[in-house]
Amino acid sequence: MTVNIALLGFGTVASGVPFLLQENSTKITAQAGTDIQIAKVLVRDVAEKDVLRAQGHAYDFVTDISAILNDDAIDIVIELMGRIEPAKTFITQALQAKKHVVTANKDLLAMHGADLLKVAKDNGVALYYEAAVAGGIPILRTLAHSYTADKITKILGVVNGTSNFMMTKMVDEGWTYDEALAEASRLGYAESDPTNDVDGIDAAYKMVILSQFAFGMTIKFDDVRHEGIRHITPEDVKLAQKLGFVIKLVGEIVERPSGIYAEVVPTFLPKDHQLATVNGVMNAVFVESIGINEAMFYGPGAGQKPTATSVVADVIELAKGIQKGAVLPAFNTFARETVYATKEDLVDKYYFAIETDDKAGQLLHLAELFHAENVSFEQVFQENLGDNRASIAIIAHKMDLNQFDSLVEKISALDGFTLRNTIKVI
Amino acid sequence: MTVNIALLGFGTVASGVPFLLQENSTKITAQAGTDIQIAKVLVRDVAEKDVLRAQGHAYDFVTDISAILNDDAIDIVIELMGRIEPAKTFITQALQAKKHVVTANKDLLAMHGADLLKVAKDNGVALYYEAAVAGGIPILRTLAHSYTADKITKILGVVNGTSNFMMTKMVDEGWTYDEALAEASRLGYAESDPTNDVDGIDAAYKMVILSQFAFGMTIKFDDVRHEGIRHITPEDVKLAQKLGFVIKLVGEIVERPSGIYAEVVPTFLPKDHQLATVNGVMNAVFVESIGINEAMFYGPGAGQKPTATSVVADVIELAKGIQKGAVLPAFNTFARETVYATKEDLVDKYYFAIETDDKAGQLLHLAELFHAENVSFEQVFQENLGDNRASIAIIAHKMDLNQFDSLVEKISALDGFTLRNTIKVI
Ligand SMILES: NC(=O)c1ccc[n+]([C@@H]2O[C@H](COP(=O)([O-])OP(=O)(O)OC[C@H]3O[C@@H](n4cnc5c(N)ncnc54)[C@H](OP(=O)(O)O)[C@@H]3O)[C@@H](O)[C@H]2O)c1
Ligand SMILES: NC(=O)c1ccc[n+]([C@@H]2O[C@H](COP(=O)([O-])OP(=O)(O)OC[C@H]3O[C@@H](n4cnc5c(N)ncnc54)[C@H](OP(=O)(O)O)[C@@H]3O)[C@@H](O)[C@H]2O)c1
Repeated sequence: MTVNIALLGFGTVASGVPFLLQENSTKITAQAGTDIQIAKVLVRDVAEKDVLRAQGHAYDFVTDISAILNDDAIDIVIELMGRIEPAKTFITQALQAKKHVVTANKDLLAMHGADLLKVAKDNGVALYYEAAVAGGIPILRTLAHSYTADKITKILGVVNGTSNFMMTKMVDEGWTYDEALAEASRLGYAESDPTNDVDGIDAAYKMVILSQFAFGMTIKFDDVRHEGIRHITPEDVKLAQKLGFVIKLVGEIVERPSGIYAEVVPTFLPKDHQLATVNGVMNAVFVESIGINEAMFYGPGAGQKPTATSVVADVIELAKGIQKGAVLPAFNTFARETVYATKEDLVDKYYFAIETDDKAGQLLHLAELFHAENVSFEQVFQENLGDNRASIAIIAHKMDLNQFDSLVEKISALDGFTLRNTIKVI
Repeated sequence: MTVNIALLGFGTVASGVPFLLQENSTKITAQAGTDIQIAKVLVRDVAEKDVLRAQGHAYDFVTDISAILNDDAIDIVIELMGRIEPAKTFITQALQAKKHVVTANKDLLAMHGADLLKVAKDNGVALYYEAAVAGGIPILRTLAHSYTADKITKILGVVNGTSNFMMTKMVDEGWTYDEALAEASRLGYAESDPTNDVDGIDAAYKMVILSQFAFGMTIKFDDVRHEGIRHITPEDVKLAQKLGFVIKLVGEIVERPSGIYAEVVPTFLPKDHQLATVNGVMNAVFVESIGINEAMFYGPGAGQKPTATSVVADVIELAKGIQKGAVLPAFNTFARETVYATKEDLVDKYYFAIETDDKAGQLLHLAELFHAENVSFEQVFQENLGDNRASIAIIAHKMDLNQFDSLVEKISALDGFTLRNTIKVI
């Protein structure tokens, strides 16, 4: 028996698939219990086809998706084009044609995953996507199969390699945000428009997907508060270091008595926290639960081979099931009604970086403002910036999200004060 | 439908099973697709039964294994008694009675796993044991289901909590081995006879099991070179620190062109290696492969709840399969002929701690001896110990295992020299 697959797109990740199928063919065939063949590859146009042929690729390249949809020999379609359209349409059509689908498309899954999973279910086929979160780290299958007896209470993730690379340079080398971004671009980690990476959008997509596997709930993308790393300065980094912290962009999902909540925000992590040593482009997902208590899954968040390895692992799981002939299990079967936490239930410490005129009474203003919100200072650092300006850094005691939002609003509105940045403290 | 389980033994881990079944009952029932009931519990004798009853446990306690073996309602037997016998006999009988078995018994699996797996196969049932390696870390299922497309080249594991707790105290606090052992005993981490933990035996058991999942080969326990932490002194630790290393007891399995090899030895780990920050009783398994490249799985290696969580996850996987009525998949399906690496193929750097009389020419003696083995020094540290004794610490350049063994033999035989310790350098 042979399981036939079709690739949609032949870019970075997709071209890693044939590498693995060949390099590890003996193991893959043994594990899958069958040969796995690349039957067709969808490329954009005839020009791309010609270029790939000239490079020595001898696949059956097609430029029309219907050549794949109508091919009954194809069991599994692997979407690796990226973006929302035409990926969404092609995946939908493939599922409707009773083909199993594997994808690494986190944007699409975060925005339209529920719809696609419904189409899969209605058509008795499966949609797997291990590579969509933290590319090379086998985190989704682990949550789905090894946390079945456990109750997860918190997920902390460093799940965007580009921003983590930048933060590592900013922390270890004292670089500015602009210097770090320039280096990330030079190395090909950052795209010409780095918004998705540096503003926490990509990490927020991944929180949506993780919320489904870890908590059985679906947090909508628009409900994931996200804040990026653009406003972090060498001063923030230095103060963090002085206090025994490193700063990272951390995605967090928590379940509180009232419900769940997710955000992606710059975070002060204690130096001895297991996530604090996740550096460069590496990713990690830290899981707190009532059974296992604390565990961490560390590895590459991206890259051709790591991501293709996760994709092919999905294909192998599907291939095993296809031979049995039974309906394949859904990738994730944990589902509860989604209930959001109330803001009163979300309590954290925060760092506030504020600039103001270097004159008497400014700190008193702030102290009154915090006092009015019932939040007290844990530590305060004041520094003269020259030009009659001063920087005031405040680490405040725990507050709930209402208090935090209110403080941000009030400080921002305060005449003569600039709220330069806020950072969560773990 | 209800899946009925029987517990053999009701000690630390076993008594965590009812906790999870109750605490997470909704999720567990949903994930398993069925109720899971504890039908019977085997205890040692009537006295233990009475004690447990008096504590409020209302299970159907039995003292004779045949009450479980002959009970057709029981689908899964969970062995949590430990040791080889009678666990081996009971598991064999349970498998022969066509019951699936879950165990956490690493000693038994390392010594007789192949036999038991054969009995399971012959009887069309499954034997699962996620908790046997690094208790709470879901490493075995991950290797079996997420590394299917990958080729693993190296495993590094900190997989014994007791010795890692001790090494952490020795590194962070400068404690001696004896001080660390006393504290480990006081906290209940070390047993009255700590041999298995401090001499690397327990970690070696785990290397046997990991070799099967990661490499598809079975390294025999007797072929796992193992050396413990008894000989590590504060001087070794200090020198390591000075050179940017921490010392840990590390299990390693490598595949080289000639075959595979496993050992458990004290190791100098670079401070920025991901394993270097795995402290206290925590465990981690670091995996190098051609696809994912580098990944690490971190978590508790023991403890009632983490270990019971892995046990119940196995039960849930079995319960899912039982309902389908098909033959359940083996826990690990990766198997190749076992081929051992040649010693020439195993090349590492080593640290040698030597004591000798404090007189001229001693270092020259050693230099000649290393030179004769074609091994050169990378760094040498000589220190006066008083009483006319000197300590010589040598970090030697890479050598193969023949050279290493020969050096150890020759230094040990050298008149007036004591080879105090050797430590691998990663
Ligand atoms: N790269 C990673 O490390 C990584 C990690 C995790 C997840 N992912 C996800 O994996 C997916 C693929 O990423 P990638 O890095 O491989 O992207 P990529 O290198 O840009 O490859 C995408 C390929 O698809 C082609 N394509 C786009 N639209 C097409 C269409 N309508 N018909 C045929 N071909 C089309 C593109 O051609 P053109 O170049 O002509 O547009 C390109 O060759 C994305 O969803 C990404 O988010 C990637
Ligand atoms: N504890 C952990 O964190 C951990 C982690 C990973 C794996 N494991 C493994 O899990 C297994 C159980 O460990 P544990 O810590 O739970 O051990 P434990 O606390 O000593 O429990 C074992 C229980 O089994 C009972 N038992 C022994 N022989 C019996 C027999 N013939 N009939 C009935 N009951 C019998 C013992 O009774 P007596 O006390 O009367 O002997 C004891 O109550 C071991 O294989 C261990 O290696 C444990």
